[in-house]
Amino acid sequence: MSDPIVLYDIPLNANGTAWSPHTWRTRYTLNYKNLAYRTVWVPYTSIEPTSKRLAARPTSLWPDDAPRYTLPAIFDPSTNTPIADSIAIARYLDAQYPHTPRVIPEGTEGFHEAFLVALDAVTSPALRNLAMPASLVRIDDEAAKAKYKRDREWQVGGAMEEWAPEGSEKRVGLWRELEAGLAKVAKWYEAGEDKDRKFLMGDDPVMADFVVAGRLMWLKVVLGEEHEEWKAVETWHEGRWAKLLKDLEVYAEVKV
Amino acid sequence: MSDPIVLYDIPLNANGTAWSPHTWRTRYTLNYKNLAYRTVWVPYTSIEPTSKRLAARPTSLWPDDAPRYTLPAIFDPSTNTPIADSIAIARYLDAQYPHTPRVIPEGTEGFHEAFLVALDAVTSPALRNLAMPASLVRIDDEAAKAKYKRDREWQVGGAMEEWAPEGSEKRVGLWRELEAGLAKVAKWYEAGEDKDRKFLMGDDPVMADFVVAGRLMWLKVVLGEEHEEWKAVETWHEGRWAKLLKDLEVYAEVKV
Repeated sequence: MSDPIVLYDIPLNANGTAWSPHTWRTRYTLNYKNLAYRTVWVPYTSIEPTSKRLAARPTSLWPDDAPRYTLPAIFDPSTNTPIADSIAIARYLDAQYPHTPRVIPEGTEGFHEAFLVALDAVTSPALRNLAMPASLVRIDDEAAKAKYKRDREWQVGGAMEEWAPEGSEKRVGLWRELEAGLAKVAKWYEAGEDKDRKFLMGDDPVMADFVVAGRLMWLKVVLGEEHEEWKAVETWHEGRWAKLLKDLEVYAEVKV
Repeated sequence: MSDPIVLYDIPLNANGTAWSPHTWRTRYTLNYKNLAYRTVWVPYTSIEPTSKRLAARPTSLWPDDAPRYTLPAIFDPSTNTPIADSIAIARYLDAQYPHTPRVIPEGTEGFHEAFLVALDAVTSPALRNLAMPASLVRIDDEAAKAKYKRDREWQVGGAMEEWAPEGSEKRVGLWRELEAGLAKVAKWYEAGEDKDRKFLMGDDPVMADFVVAGRLMWLKVVLGEEHEEWKAVETWHEGRWAKLLKDLEVYAEVKV
């Protein structure tokens, strides 16, 4: 039996709490496919050197066009393959392990790409402006915290503390914006005959569901599940988002 | 044999040239399904009274929240059913005529909704600002022209003549923006293993393809196929958009 796949994830704290919306997608994917894997925690400050050592490719560009390395990445010892980017990882796993359920069903590759654009169009920047500062507060390591702040402010502009200050009108407005955006996503889930299906395409989840759930997990983890703002999200759209996470809970195990 | 379905379309001129990106979607759908239908031309000024007479429902709202009636609409004499909105029509035809190829394959209902949002996010407002004034110039009927101008300026703001004046820097910028937006759409078409497939999901078209093609037909018809700006679009992304229209030409017949 070959060694398990390695999932490289970013820890929120010394306990290694999983919080990144992007690495959550890959965890859901690996668990859903029931592939053997283990998690290696990579501090936020070590993403680039770790990726380079793995020979995982940069996935995007920084504002100055420098190559940007991101997690999740995986390393599959059975094929000696490193891959970064949650969608590229899903494609690789679908192709490499054809006996496992596909997370990007044949023919939906283009729809999945468009789905990412649509989801950004309706949930960003509200989600980003709320969740990034909430993440900053929760990141334990001082060097990681400082780099996260610097990187995100470089991307977005302005001081993170000003994006969504607690108790501000601005923050209330962002929550309202996010709720309105997710109302549109709820309509996508309700389109078609089978309005009671669990997931976007039916009763089996696909990558698009993991993308939505990853964003929700991000909010839930960095706000804390007892936070009143998260509690409110759980009531939106007849509890749809709480139910989505519940329906995916069986694939949410953090295997270390 | 029952009477054919009626497709209500908006004429560009006295010859009834089809130009609306939305009614093109339904024409492609009806032709692809090989359903018997005929076209009834409804002047732009008569959309609301015709829809009301048909009992087709309003599909959206005007800026003052008044109900807005739009075409395409169809009337199916075999079931005595009027329906407006190209997506609703596609769903109805998929369900009512199950022996015809589905244009919204099972499970892709939500993806189709998200696709519309994504396509708007990457092609509007450039497409709108270019194609609406070009349409205005081509609408023959003076009353229709005046109403089209009034309605669109109400929606968008500003005088239509200022949106994309011929020969202006602004217009050049809009074409560049549209090209960059369609470059993203090209990536959706190339996502996945089968990069040579004709359509988004494979070698059979779906509604998403008709939506993209409808927008292209709009530009082609209102600019004129000999216009140098349209000729440029045909060269973009290795001729992908010219090829898409070519591959759908067999379903583009205007049946009167």
